Amino acid sequence: MHTHVGIVGAGPAGLLLSHLLHLHGISSVVLEARTRDHIEHRVRAGVLEQGTVDILREAGVSARMDAEGKRHEGIELRFDGEPHRIPMTELTGRAITVYGQQEVVKDLVARRLDDGADIRFEVADVRIDGLTGDRPTIRFRHGATEQELSCDVIAGCDGFHGVCRPSVPAGELTVYEREYPFGWLGILAEAKPAIDELIYCLHDEGFALYSMRSDHVSRLYLQVSADEDIAAWPDERIWSELATRFRLAGSDWRPNEGPIFDKGITGMRSFVTEPMQYGRLLLAGDAVHIVPPTGAKGLNLAVNDVWIMARALDAWFNHGDDEPLHHYSRDALRRVWRAQHFSWWMTSMLHRFGDDPYELRLQIAQLNNVVESTAYATALSENYVG
Amino acid sequence: MHTHVGIVGAGPAGLLLSHLLHLHGISSVVLEARTRDHIEHRVRAGVLEQGTVDILREAGVSARMDAEGKRHEGIELRFDGEPHRIPMTELTGRAITVYGQQEVVKDLVARRLDDGADIRFEVADVRIDGLTGDRPTIRFRHGATEQELSCDVIAGCDGFHGVCRPSVPAGELTVYEREYPFGWLGILAEAKPAIDELIYCLHDEGFALYSMRSDHVSRLYLQVSADEDIAAWPDERIWSELATRFRLAGSDWRPNEGPIFDKGITGMRSFVTEPMQYGRLLLAGDAVHIVPPTGAKGLNLAVNDVWIMARALDAWFNHGDDEPLHHYSRDALRRVWRAQHFSWWMTSMLHRFGDDPYELRLQIAQLNNVVESTAYATALSENYVG
Repeated sequence: MHTHVGIVGAGPAGLLLSHLLHLHGISSVVLEARTRDHIEHRVRAGVLEQGTVDILREAGVSARMDAEGKRHEGIELRFDGEPHRIPMTELTGRAITVYGQQEVVKDLVARRLDDGADIRFEVADVRIDGLTGDRPTIRFRHGATEQELSCDVIAGCDGFHGVCRPSVPAGELTVYEREYPFGWLGILAEAKPAIDELIYCLHDEGFALYSMRSDHVSRLYLQVSADEDIAAWPDERIWSELATRFRLAGSDWRPNEGPIFDKGITGMRSFVTEPMQYGRLLLAGDAVHIVPPTGAKGLNLAVNDVWIMARALDAWFNHGDDEPLHHYSRDALRRVWRAQHFSWWMTSMLHRFGDDPYELRLQIAQLNNVVESTAYATALSENYVG
Repeated sequence: MHTHVGIVGAGPAGLLLSHLLHLHGISSVVLEARTRDHIEHRVRAGVLEQGTVDILREAGVSARMDAEGKRHEGIELRFDGEPHRIPMTELTGRAITVYGQQEVVKDLVARRLDDGADIRFEVADVRIDGLTGDRPTIRFRHGATEQELSCDVIAGCDGFHGVCRPSVPAGELTVYEREYPFGWLGILAEAKPAIDELIYCLHDEGFALYSMRSDHVSRLYLQVSADEDIAAWPDERIWSELATRFRLAGSDWRPNEGPIFDKGITGMRSFVTEPMQYGRLLLAGDAVHIVPPTGAKGLNLAVNDVWIMARALDAWFNHGDDEPLHHYSRDALRRVWRAQHFSWWMTSMLHRFGDDPYELRLQIAQLNNVVESTAYATALSENYVG
């Protein structure tokens, strides 16, 4: 069995890559360890940059996103009990679209299957080999069958815990990383959002984020310690803490409550591996870089990676030009590091780091500077809308 | 002996305050522990913000500064061996003026003495009392004489190690502070500057700053460890290290060398005490806040403090309005914290903090963002030119 591009992982990166390659007449096979149902219901990010929306539109997979996604033209920064709106669209001409990652995945799976794609779900024991030769291979089990897929190129879109990055020989890749001393406790609740735009909030007790998934579903987050026990957070405590952190001076405003149907704690990490390619293996998305979610950049970076990768593969397969392919890592890393910085900036400005009182005053000073300076607010907005 | 305002310290803050009060018809006495010669030759900061220049002009003490100061319309950020100019004046309409702090001090002393001011040099054993009453007093020795000065208000302009701030009862003031794990080795050299504008440089080995005091005197700094021994830095090592850090890719450009006539190591600290007033004591400048020198804000903050203080004292003494005086601390602290943030930003973006490779890449990513984004460059410039 041979294909032009063997794609490991059916997340947004792998699926969009497969679709973009199809548009260029390049064949691919997508291998995914989980079930279709699993990947279509895995709750992840929900903020699409303008650039991501543009790519999905250009690729012809935006119909449902255009109908159901919510365009947001600003965000609120809330601190010292006061709200401050950042009018992103006014400042940059661009906007974000709130649309769940799993919805993007559903749209891409449906479109790929309509176009006759070869997506194998529930494959096991994936091994990649021959990366420095002309015919790298992917071996895997599908049901009871051991299979071998020969490729021209392998795309590693299999996430942080995937097999592709660790298949590169030790010493070929450099890792840059940072862990943060806190995590996010996230909930999904059947509650009409009390807001029209996202609120990023810094409170003495820590960060909180108010976002939404639909007119009926709220998505809220609380900064908690990295080793927090979810059992210590019954629903009442969560709502009480959310009300505390989002409190507005002189007001009884609070988030709308409703049944919580999803609850979990996520760690926070910054991570980049360089280069993003090794021989015939090209890495994309979480397989090669991670950002803390504060900047809402993870999904958007994955889309940007595979967009660059698809153009490079088009140049190579269809026009015999291998320059863009050789420079894939360099070209993708520009945007990756910009997003690393922005994600760190938002994270460090909006979370409590220990009890240092100087740190908190510095954060408030920075937030005041951002909301009072058009230039600073524009710099933040440019990075946020992408 | 009675005066309206007893001023402790004849640095730029105390002298400018005394002059501004004189313009408002308010009497003052200035007490200084060192000699006139000492304060007029103490080498300190040399970058005046546009706002500082405007205040000195409005106060009629700018003649020599206007003649000899150098107007700079940009700075260079140098990293990864590449130069990037930030065109501050193009971005903000404002500029900085390079003019030594000791020159400002000379101009103010000369003008104050011309106007018949009472400045006492070499006073010793200064004690302040009665801060919560209507007639605070300053006792001190001048030569062999013990003296007592009765005041309406005392202005503490006596620097970080002065007596005023520690005279406030324990528990009345809150201290916010941070120390940095490095210092600056600074030199003055008889060497024509090889530059027209300041260079802020980040290198793998650490930060370096290239500035100047005149057409014949260069002022250069190297980041060194906080406990560095100056004896480990003979002149040849300094020039060699400066050449390394300022290296431009593909060029043999280096700083001009010349005899080094001043050499010293300074620690780096961020420090704010709140509030900036206690009863009839008003604190200004280094007596109440310190910034690391990377943002060139120390002198400018002191000038801003006493400008606000002089207006408040004018309202009180001349118009019977005590509102501005009650709000002196609140009003001055807005600018203080903005400068605290900017100084921390420049410091954290441009120095090496340990060996964390992620940190260095993050710094380079931020610097790229600053030089590539007009909005980001404008935010930096607005803060720098003041």
